[in-house]
Amino acid sequence: MAETRIHFHEALGTLKGLLIEMGGKAEALIDLAVYGYLARDIAVCSKVLTIEKEINLAERRIDELALELLASQQPMAGDLRLITACMKINSDLERVGDQAANIARRGLAETHLAHVELPVDIPRIAAAAAGMIRRALNAFIEKDADLAFAVLKMDDVVDRMDDDAWKSLVRKMHEAPDVLDQALDALIVVRNLERVADHATNIAEGVILWIRGTDVRHGIAHLMPSQE
Amino acid sequence: MAETRIHFHEALGTLKGLLIEMGGKAEALIDLAVYGYLARDIAVCSKVLTIEKEINLAERRIDELALELLASQQPMAGDLRLITACMKINSDLERVGDQAANIARRGLAETHLAHVELPVDIPRIAAAAAGMIRRALNAFIEKDADLAFAVLKMDDVVDRMDDDAWKSLVRKMHEAPDVLDQALDALIVVRNLERVADHATNIAEGVILWIRGTDVRHGIAHLMPSQE
Repeated sequence: MAETRIHFHEALGTLKGLLIEMGGKAEALIDLAVYGYLARDIAVCSKVLTIEKEINLAERRIDELALELLASQQPMAGDLRLITACMKINSDLERVGDQAANIARRGLAETHLAHVELPVDIPRIAAAAAGMIRRALNAFIEKDADLAFAVLKMDDVVDRMDDDAWKSLVRKMHEAPDVLDQALDALIVVRNLERVADHATNIAEGVILWIRGTDVRHGIAHLMPSQE
Repeated sequence: MAETRIHFHEALGTLKGLLIEMGGKAEALIDLAVYGYLARDIAVCSKVLTIEKEINLAERRIDELALELLASQQPMAGDLRLITACMKINSDLERVGDQAANIARRGLAETHLAHVELPVDIPRIAAAAAGMIRRALNAFIEKDADLAFAVLKMDDVVDRMDDDAWKSLVRKMHEAPDVLDQALDALIVVRNLERVADHATNIAEGVILWIRGTDVRHGIAHLMPSQE
């Protein structure tokens, strides 16, 4: 039995490792997609679509391993929460990959359009969203609930950036109809990044749920971090 | 032991029942949100936001029950797949609720704008997307893999509707800048509906995974329905 549990914990370690690797890949893919979009670099955008497929495969492998671990023996309560947290994080990371692919597709769509200046700082929004993913993953790796709570707060910042970008870009579309297509693409990219931030929020909630054994989704006011 | 298993299967029935109820609610909420948006009915749109909160609560309850079932005893392989399928479907249904809320918010944002005719048949797209949710849930209830495969095919239809709507609306924005805001809202609503269809696809994939014990995500060509 002791040996079985050692084997189980090794496999659990593998599961966490695969997830962390996938998370790093998803986070880096956001940067790459935004670079490809801004530079209208067809090769980079195409590369993003290839890597996104790899992330899809990784999701499947992680899901299978999690299911095997659930089936192999009765996991203890904490392990059980860890495995189901991994399954949820896995699903969100795969959707981060989807968003990166969406951004890369905007880059590919832009290649025939004139390059124009737009009143939006996409690299800044991308850095905030990717930073949320990185912090949410670190919260998972370090088992740090306070860091996970910090991610939840960052979501408000990205939501505000999204609102501001939306307003500026719609104003631009009114003022300069000749750049309507480019402004619309930028709007979509910003919205994609806002959804990346949402996924980071989901991951952070999953981490807190796992650590505290408490459900913090849909209302966290009564569950603020311990140092506050 | 026999008695414990009976109790377990009762609880599993409760889990499925709660999920089906939540699914019906999510599907109906899409219709309500689209109605509220098209009619710019503030009361209806506000009602959508209230019901969406109920769906969030239902998601949490279902997740807790699923976790309890996983923890309570060693579920057999088939039951295990059913429980994890329920958890995934649960997460997608909650996000369908999010989309309904997004649509309702567009309705609330439109109240100060003039009503205009736009080259898009939103009720038709909504009917297709909500129909996919309904069929995916029926596939789950009836354990019908073929019906689930039919949902996957419908997704292509909705994607095409989304593409067509996108093109028509962007053209309209170019031709009639005075209705830019309304056309943009319509674009967002169509995109929200397209995401509802994506969630229906995820649910259908989860149902097939559960029934066949095979992962059909990201490539289904080798796993077509039995009658074909």
